Amino acid sequence: MRELEERILKDGRVLPGEVLKVDGFLNHQVDPDLMFAMGTEFAHLFQDAGVTKILTVESSGIAPAVMAGLAMHVPVVFARKHKSVTLIDDLYTAEVYSYTKKTSNHISIAKKFLQADDQVLLIDDFLANGQAVQGMFEICDKAHVKIAGVGIVIEKVFQTGHQLIADRGVRLESLAQITSFDGDRVHFASEDTQA
Amino acid sequence: MRELEERILKDGRVLPGEVLKVDGFLNHQVDPDLMFAMGTEFAHLFQDAGVTKILTVESSGIAPAVMAGLAMHVPVVFARKHKSVTLIDDLYTAEVYSYTKKTSNHISIAKKFLQADDQVLLIDDFLANGQAVQGMFEICDKAHVKIAGVGIVIEKVFQTGHQLIADRGVRLESLAQITSFDGDRVHFASEDTQA
Repeated sequence: MRELEERILKDGRVLPGEVLKVDGFLNHQVDPDLMFAMGTEFAHLFQDAGVTKILTVESSGIAPAVMAGLAMHVPVVFARKHKSVTLIDDLYTAEVYSYTKKTSNHISIAKKFLQADDQVLLIDDFLANGQAVQGMFEICDKAHVKIAGVGIVIEKVFQTGHQLIADRGVRLESLAQITSFDGDRVHFASEDTQA
Repeated sequence: MRELEERILKDGRVLPGEVLKVDGFLNHQVDPDLMFAMGTEFAHLFQDAGVTKILTVESSGIAPAVMAGLAMHVPVVFARKHKSVTLIDDLYTAEVYSYTKKTSNHISIAKKFLQADDQVLLIDDFLANGQAVQGMFEICDKAHVKIAGVGIVIEKVFQTGHQLIADRGVRLESLAQITSFDGDRVHFASEDTQA
């Protein structure tokens, strides 16, 4: 998505450890008009996927997910993060390891919000090692729902998350695919196709 | 806002301790179309307030705040919650006590996202004792920005948050004002004006 790539080049900052900081428009300060454009793009990409519900993880996934939900007119459920989980009778839970923070969290959603006939689109702001997506897969499996696809705002294709989703045979659409960092420069997969 | 009140009556559940559970459309599962209608209503209510930025607190405030931001075409910043705060040089922080959870959290936002000429609209999903709003007031004061108003999705007018905002002389607009719970029945301020 050209508009997003341009914004990353303009406002993103590359930090040591191949971390891209985009807190100016995506995950701390949010640009709602850009989010809406992204939601519309997700709706377009998954228009034939029979999506009945969108699932994401708090907090950074919420803005892109609700905009996709607005464009697709389907409900959005955001999984809650906890240090630990108690009283889990009414919850589907999964453990998610964060490579950035080097800690484990549990994510959970109330069972009543996933029905067996749901076709669920998973949305998240970043795809790196795919731990959050894997946690959402686990929750979907426990709920016996069909996964309609995975929609990612910014994907680092050189990390392991991409393969994890491919191995599962689930369709992945990322609005910006970063192939490499070169010092503080960001390279996108779209550069190759444009060349 | 009639549509919101009807949804509360249909899907809300009153729990002991005057807690209204609305996890079916507001703070766990989200109805994006209703959120957009609410965002449009906030934009209408504050159209003459000169709003340059919206501030909210993760996670439940994000969906209504980004929809208001979409309708007003202004950026949205969501404050992060932490158990404790370290490395605060670049952050504005405030302590927020939760009466529901009986714990204190710190909220923070990066200093660079509040400029002295900003006129900030504070948005949150619930107003009860007003602790989150008070935390946002504190952050705005530290940043020397003007507070353009407070927009709340569901207000419990019989708790102390309403007065806290009135005492500060800040304009408050709530899309649903709950005056009392009567067993599992919810009463709105609009019932009085309609009578």
